[in-house]
Amino acid sequence: MSKSQEFPQPVAGTVVPRFGDVATFMRLPLFRDPTAVEIGMVGVPWDGGTTNRPGARHGPRQMRDLSTMMRRIHHVTGIAPYELARCGDLGDAPVNPASLDDSLDRIEKHYAKLHAAGVVPLSAGGDHLITLPIMRGIRKGLPPLGMVHFDAHSDTWDTYFGGFKYTHGTPFRRAVEEGLLDPKRVVQIGIRGSLYKADDNQWALDQGMRVITIEEYFDLGVEKVIEEARRVVGAGPTYVSFDVDGLDPAYAPGTGTPEIGGYTPHEAQRMLRGLRGLDLVGGDVVEVSPPFDMSGNTALVGVTMMWEILCLLAEAVAKRKGRI
Amino acid sequence: MSKSQEFPQPVAGTVVPRFGDVATFMRLPLFRDPTAVEIGMVGVPWDGGTTNRPGARHGPRQMRDLSTMMRRIHHVTGIAPYELARCGDLGDAPVNPASLDDSLDRIEKHYAKLHAAGVVPLSAGGDHLITLPIMRGIRKGLPPLGMVHFDAHSDTWDTYFGGFKYTHGTPFRRAVEEGLLDPKRVVQIGIRGSLYKADDNQWALDQGMRVITIEEYFDLGVEKVIEEARRVVGAGPTYVSFDVDGLDPAYAPGTGTPEIGGYTPHEAQRMLRGLRGLDLVGGDVVEVSPPFDMSGNTALVGVTMMWEILCLLAEAVAKRKGRI
Amino acid sequence: MSKSQEFPQPVAGTVVPRFGDVATFMRLPLFRDPTAVEIGMVGVPWDGGTTNRPGARHGPRQMRDLSTMMRRIHHVTGIAPYELARCGDLGDAPVNPASLDDSLDRIEKHYAKLHAAGVVPLSAGGDHLITLPIMRGIRKGLPPLGMVHFDAHSDTWDTYFGGFKYTHGTPFRRAVEEGLLDPKRVVQIGIRGSLYKADDNQWALDQGMRVITIEEYFDLGVEKVIEEARRVVGAGPTYVSFDVDGLDPAYAPGTGTPEIGGYTPHEAQRMLRGLRGLDLVGGDVVEVSPPFDMSGNTALVGVTMMWEILCLLAEAVAKRKGRI
Amino acid sequence: MSKSQEFPQPVAGTVVPRFGDVATFMRLPLFRDPTAVEIGMVGVPWDGGTTNRPGARHGPRQMRDLSTMMRRIHHVTGIAPYELARCGDLGDAPVNPASLDDSLDRIEKHYAKLHAAGVVPLSAGGDHLITLPIMRGIRKGLPPLGMVHFDAHSDTWDTYFGGFKYTHGTPFRRAVEEGLLDPKRVVQIGIRGSLYKADDNQWALDQGMRVITIEEYFDLGVEKVIEEARRVVGAGPTYVSFDVDGLDPAYAPGTGTPEIGGYTPHEAQRMLRGLRGLDLVGGDVVEVSPPFDMSGNTALVGVTMMWEILCLLAEAVAKRKGRI
Amino acid sequence: MSKSQEFPQPVAGTVVPRFGDVATFMRLPLFRDPTAVEIGMVGVPWDGGTTNRPGARHGPRQMRDLSTMMRRIHHVTGIAPYELARCGDLGDAPVNPASLDDSLDRIEKHYAKLHAAGVVPLSAGGDHLITLPIMRGIRKGLPPLGMVHFDAHSDTWDTYFGGFKYTHGTPFRRAVEEGLLDPKRVVQIGIRGSLYKADDNQWALDQGMRVITIEEYFDLGVEKVIEEARRVVGAGPTYVSFDVDGLDPAYAPGTGTPEIGGYTPHEAQRMLRGLRGLDLVGGDVVEVSPPFDMSGNTALVGVTMMWEILCLLAEAVAKRKGRI
Amino acid sequence: MSKSQEFPQPVAGTVVPRFGDVATFMRLPLFRDPTAVEIGMVGVPWDGGTTNRPGARHGPRQMRDLSTMMRRIHHVTGIAPYELARCGDLGDAPVNPASLDDSLDRIEKHYAKLHAAGVVPLSAGGDHLITLPIMRGIRKGLPPLGMVHFDAHSDTWDTYFGGFKYTHGTPFRRAVEEGLLDPKRVVQIGIRGSLYKADDNQWALDQGMRVITIEEYFDLGVEKVIEEARRVVGAGPTYVSFDVDGLDPAYAPGTGTPEIGGYTPHEAQRMLRGLRGLDLVGGDVVEVSPPFDMSGNTALVGVTMMWEILCLLAEAVAKRKGRI
Repeated sequence: MSKSQEFPQPVAGTVVPRFGDVATFMRLPLFRDPTAVEIGMVGVPWDGGTTNRPGARHGPRQMRDLSTMMRRIHHVTGIAPYELARCGDLGDAPVNPASLDDSLDRIEKHYAKLHAAGVVPLSAGGDHLITLPIMRGIRKGLPPLGMVHFDAHSDTWDTYFGGFKYTHGTPFRRAVEEGLLDPKRVVQIGIRGSLYKADDNQWALDQGMRVITIEEYFDLGVEKVIEEARRVVGAGPTYVSFDVDGLDPAYAPGTGTPEIGGYTPHEAQRMLRGLRGLDLVGGDVVEVSPPFDMSGNTALVGVTMMWEILCLLAEAVAKRKGRI
Repeated sequence: MSKSQEFPQPVAGTVVPRFGDVATFMRLPLFRDPTAVEIGMVGVPWDGGTTNRPGARHGPRQMRDLSTMMRRIHHVTGIAPYELARCGDLGDAPVNPASLDDSLDRIEKHYAKLHAAGVVPLSAGGDHLITLPIMRGIRKGLPPLGMVHFDAHSDTWDTYFGGFKYTHGTPFRRAVEEGLLDPKRVVQIGIRGSLYKADDNQWALDQGMRVITIEEYFDLGVEKVIEEARRVVGAGPTYVSFDVDGLDPAYAPGTGTPEIGGYTPHEAQRMLRGLRGLDLVGGDVVEVSPPFDMSGNTALVGVTMMWEILCLLAEAVAKRKGRI
Repeated sequence: MSKSQEFPQPVAGTVVPRFGDVATFMRLPLFRDPTAVEIGMVGVPWDGGTTNRPGARHGPRQMRDLSTMMRRIHHVTGIAPYELARCGDLGDAPVNPASLDDSLDRIEKHYAKLHAAGVVPLSAGGDHLITLPIMRGIRKGLPPLGMVHFDAHSDTWDTYFGGFKYTHGTPFRRAVEEGLLDPKRVVQIGIRGSLYKADDNQWALDQGMRVITIEEYFDLGVEKVIEEARRVVGAGPTYVSFDVDGLDPAYAPGTGTPEIGGYTPHEAQRMLRGLRGLDLVGGDVVEVSPPFDMSGNTALVGVTMMWEILCLLAEAVAKRKGRI
Repeated sequence: MSKSQEFPQPVAGTVVPRFGDVATFMRLPLFRDPTAVEIGMVGVPWDGGTTNRPGARHGPRQMRDLSTMMRRIHHVTGIAPYELARCGDLGDAPVNPASLDDSLDRIEKHYAKLHAAGVVPLSAGGDHLITLPIMRGIRKGLPPLGMVHFDAHSDTWDTYFGGFKYTHGTPFRRAVEEGLLDPKRVVQIGIRGSLYKADDNQWALDQGMRVITIEEYFDLGVEKVIEEARRVVGAGPTYVSFDVDGLDPAYAPGTGTPEIGGYTPHEAQRMLRGLRGLDLVGGDVVEVSPPFDMSGNTALVGVTMMWEILCLLAEAVAKRKGRI
Repeated sequence: MSKSQEFPQPVAGTVVPRFGDVATFMRLPLFRDPTAVEIGMVGVPWDGGTTNRPGARHGPRQMRDLSTMMRRIHHVTGIAPYELARCGDLGDAPVNPASLDDSLDRIEKHYAKLHAAGVVPLSAGGDHLITLPIMRGIRKGLPPLGMVHFDAHSDTWDTYFGGFKYTHGTPFRRAVEEGLLDPKRVVQIGIRGSLYKADDNQWALDQGMRVITIEEYFDLGVEKVIEEARRVVGAGPTYVSFDVDGLDPAYAPGTGTPEIGGYTPHEAQRMLRGLRGLDLVGGDVVEVSPPFDMSGNTALVGVTMMWEILCLLAEAVAKRKGRI
Repeated sequence: MSKSQEFPQPVAGTVVPRFGDVATFMRLPLFRDPTAVEIGMVGVPWDGGTTNRPGARHGPRQMRDLSTMMRRIHHVTGIAPYELARCGDLGDAPVNPASLDDSLDRIEKHYAKLHAAGVVPLSAGGDHLITLPIMRGIRKGLPPLGMVHFDAHSDTWDTYFGGFKYTHGTPFRRAVEEGLLDPKRVVQIGIRGSLYKADDNQWALDQGMRVITIEEYFDLGVEKVIEEARRVVGAGPTYVSFDVDGLDPAYAPGTGTPEIGGYTPHEAQRMLRGLRGLDLVGGDVVEVSPPFDMSGNTALVGVTMMWEILCLLAEAVAKRKGRI
């Protein structure tokens, strides 16, 4: 009780109804000073890397709105993140809808500031290209990261539209090239969909990434996939990136590049819970595109995944701080 | 042929197209006199107990509309409910959107009248608080009931908003306190979602309720869950309460408190079919909120669950009447 | 320039894109201390007085989201509200979805506190019953108010559902009975729709209210209606209450009791602009029900009306403060 | 009190909330025996004549649902239809989605029966082809009818798809050919939209129909259009046919052949009110297609037009019965 | 490379963005001359056989639009259909919304022409009745066909609405009667839903069709179902007919007769992939009804099934041509 | 008959139903060779200049789909464009969602090619920034253009987000700076909405543009506005640019920057018809954003405006060709 009392606490739905008041992530206070928190939830309202259906720029607001459904304690693991770490909403990263290059630059610098302040970031996209400048921003002092990557797509294509290197289909090729990611510690779960060329996913395999297609996923089962993921990323610092299009589009229709035939939210939750104990240094949930699901159902799924990751991050932070 | 000829029969979709004519439950005749039926389908268009997203007050109408998709005979069990019992639409219970207390009172009295007339009620909510006055209304002559309860939430919280005891999050705590339910004969299936406090579901457990979380549900599998449910409720009089938020929200997005990661409609159907032979005295399907799913898909799921329960009730009635 | 520099300023869409960051009213800072502002925008997320389609409880959040479209200076009047007065988002009033009486009480007390702090309130409903406790809260030190009331309904019915006195169809009858409103200084604009009884609007007329039906509205034209409204409310303290169902439902489909055949948003804007110079003490925009218009179009109309009223209030405040 | 007491009365929204109970037209009782009423509201759930977007078969149900918003007395004319005539919901006409010819036959015979029973029909479509069999059904004992026809289209094309004579684009050519309509007593209001051939509307003009294009409509203004309509149809028996696509699609998007640039609902209401005193023998509102407007807004507009026509018919009936 | 170079190739999403240009099936060229292709994708925009919710007439356009998401190579089987066979969009079959009989005739003649030109047709419905005239059109030179039939309904009812023999509930009874189908080589997968009469599916069984209900489907599992399907259809010429209502409506809500409790798209994909090597002579995906799912999600599922079938057909064609 | 026979003709809705076949603009043939047409309809599926809600990249496809509602002859002016000029769908301009600069370059070059081939372009956006590269592309041999500009916004801001010069809020400032537009021959109709700075529209005025705010528009009336527009642009070569956000959002909700209080589609049609006889050299309809209006209603409005402009262009072309 003692310590948690000092940490920011979310508004409870039994006190202020869930639909009440300004929407912040998880109903936590909004801080402009990053030093106020240990785990900072950050919106990155930008979809300039989107090659197909746009709208992920509106994701952070809708996810904030739907995060009002979250409560305080994880019902399976018992993790109480707000007792374990100082958490808060840090607002949005600066972006520029009129310039891809400037946006990448602004996002990177923003995360570099958060990183310098000691913040472990949990981001809400935005399209998947945002993960690249986030990783650039938090690289200082860290070795190339491992990554547990939930997605229908490998996002390791090289270029689009005649040589253009930055889209939401390319971030992890760039990240490997830049030494941000250690490909041998990357596992991708749920990859599927028809191919442009027969060797679309070959580059990733060549680098040593572990690509678990959706077919292999269903054949292995959740428990084995968790084991495999833990084996791949090992004990080093690791990032969790959750693209909602890894889920079947029935659960997350509000996204830019839906591919039918994915996993269920329950299965995704189980996989995330299976990542307890990893040395997690950040995470994100991306590709929630509200214009393609005004109902908010996709955002609810997305923000529940944020909640699962938050619990993991809080435990990791508490451990690093020696609190548990 | 003899007996069934005397019972009310639904309009057939091969005669009057499914979109034709005034919408009643299952396309049965509408009766204002409860003595006309043995099983009465009743709407309770009230959502005054809703703590989050309202709209379940519009549920009965949309469920009547979508019930037009139902036919006459169960394709697995072969049960032909309209041959087994006199069934009909009894219209809606009286409610008062301007007063929670008055609504509870009106609903209870209405069901007391139906109960006195010998009606076995199958209700369409409305939010889950309606189950409380329904149980109050049918208590006469019955011991505390067993209940098979499908839901994402235990609905046994104590109070909200500073001591208020009546919301859709509290009905079964009240029902146990009032002796309407025998907690040792209550099984809850699908419970999940983050918690306000670590002991949110403890009260239910302390009373002896059998809480099957969604995690245990998936681990056990449908068949074992059915066995467990039958074991818990035993041979005594039992009520079936189906909150559509027990299902994954992909199947039932039109509801007030969606929690991702639930079971599928097919699984729910299997579980309901597994309840054949129990001494069922009533049932309800609640929390269909049309404003959050104008398409009617949620209502179709809800009313198909009503159909499953109707088959169970018809068999129970026929048995009690000595017809089978 | 001097003074305005000290006043809170909204985030500009040319700096932070409109979809960026936490959504507050007009992109202004959020204050919890009412003394920080002169004009406070307040959400009242409550629809417990709704007799038909609920959902207005979700109005304040969606209006905050859409208020991101507003800029800083009125394009016709040239009013720059944030230079004239200290404006801010004051969050939501406390409400209780489980109790009508408690909600009326909480809202009244909250506004009494704001009033005591000198705040001129501009509220976002919520259903129209909220105007009653708002008026109770700000009554101290004020004579019975005049009111310019935009609506399809007179909202002066007496009781519903067998004697219940508090619904969104009754607030102004109660307000007159309680001496909050001076009926002779009330003008209602846009009244229409079939009647329960031939004398539905007679009580209002008997009290001396000026009821401008939609038919008279169209016959008079906007300019004459403005004149008449100004004549009726005169120089005394006056409140502006804007129910979005006064507009034609094509413009504001997301509302609880739509009546076809209303005015256009442009006409409403003209009428509001025609109220410059009145001694305004508060205002509200009510009955935006997001579940019936997920697109946000209704909320955009509603919040643009808030913007128009804000400009009026800012000028009134600046005048009372001797700034202009 | 005397006479009206004997007539069927609608359920009041102040007693049973508007969302309550089985949905019938205007919340009136449902009668299967046509002799029970003088004015019968009838659904014709059929869209087999639709050449473009289907769905009007679902119109009657959605209009019944939205008719719950109607009250008892006309707020401008003061007409109280349920005091003037025996009104009721007569259910739906029989139709056959699998056969155009059989449907025309079934509908005609059904209306012939109603007509023989003395019922004045007010129908809810269905697509506009339904007006043809309705007119065939009520022809007995009547001279060729006059018609006030609200529509974007003249519906007097000859054939479609290579010689097919029955679609929702042809009913009034057929009706003139069959002597059901007196073309010299037909006025069409709101005609517009690009043409297949330069003489698309020439046939109608050649027969002597008065075609008021939307351009002429706006030039004349509502009052002059009313005068012209009254002049054309004169004192003889007249039918009112209201296709919701005469309205601008912003007000009635749920329709099969939207043409932008129509009149407003308020203007339509004024025109309908301008038809008081004509010798009206029936009416319909057609082309409400719910799948293209799940929100019900189009149906609300449609059913309010039914309400306006109902008031006219009730007055006409009462006059013929010598009650007024 | 040689031959494939000569075959029509789809536009790549990495060159022209997926949302770009006129929408054709799979972004292939549009041909009006059937001799230009070996596999022709054909729309049949007709829903005149629909007994409930219409709209499948709009299916081909929406499926063309969503097919823009498809790429060139199957990610599991490695099949590259555009290298194996000449594929193209052949536009739509002629239909007549005003006449069921004429439509059946036009469709049959159109397919007879395609068949005579050597085209293997892959069709996009339209409702399921279209499969009957397609089979009539391609019967020349073929023995009665085998069929793998994915559906919630057997579609072997006899008549509707008093003896009418042609609806989307009857095509396969007619096809057997006409010798188009060999019932002993027909397998139906996913049959479910309440019954009109206890023996609804008896006729199919009596003819020797293999009906795998959804219950049996789940009990057997995908692999066994594939084995069984292959066993039933054997080595003879076989047609694949995929009704999207075989899927659970959460995945395919835009359809005319949804039945809850179906399989997932991933499972359907696995089943289709399990049909490799069969002697396939055509296929279709039917009952996508865009008005009931404007989002396009259902069409995306449908067109991905078309992609799966296309890969099967291309391999079959290549084998028959001796290319592989 | 002679000449028109040689020109491409659209498919007629009385022959092939409107929902049939591949969707092209106005159901005209698709040409890849620009020399095949005199007036080319071109999609520009790009929204990289959008500062707020994206999605206009999907505009051309949805407008093609809805253009199926258009017929062949203008019902007021009698213009038969396909008899006056060779018209066709030229597909889409090349764009690059991953690069603003590259997109501007590609679009310009594409239009330069069309221009060199003698094509008069009628474009479907895309966001309003596309008009800049279009004007660049067609500048060769033309003096600075006049422009009739329908819009809620002047689109003459200077920079966004810290000095970025290219967004959909800046095209006409750039066009004046580059000598593409003669500001003294530019008229803007419908300008409104709150301002960032008091002098937001001052630059336009300083250049000599004629800015007709929505307030002045309503005060003048349509006829006077037409006169004024004709006076401003005079006899020189003129471009028509129609941003659908000039309309009230009730008519065109699917757009990126809605501003309430605009004109109606009928009024816009009247204004466009008032431009007959001008020396028109091109036109566009922009800012239709399908994700914000999946129903297609906005696209229908947009494409009907394209139809109106097409009639104007066809007459201008025919006059220049000496055909009339």
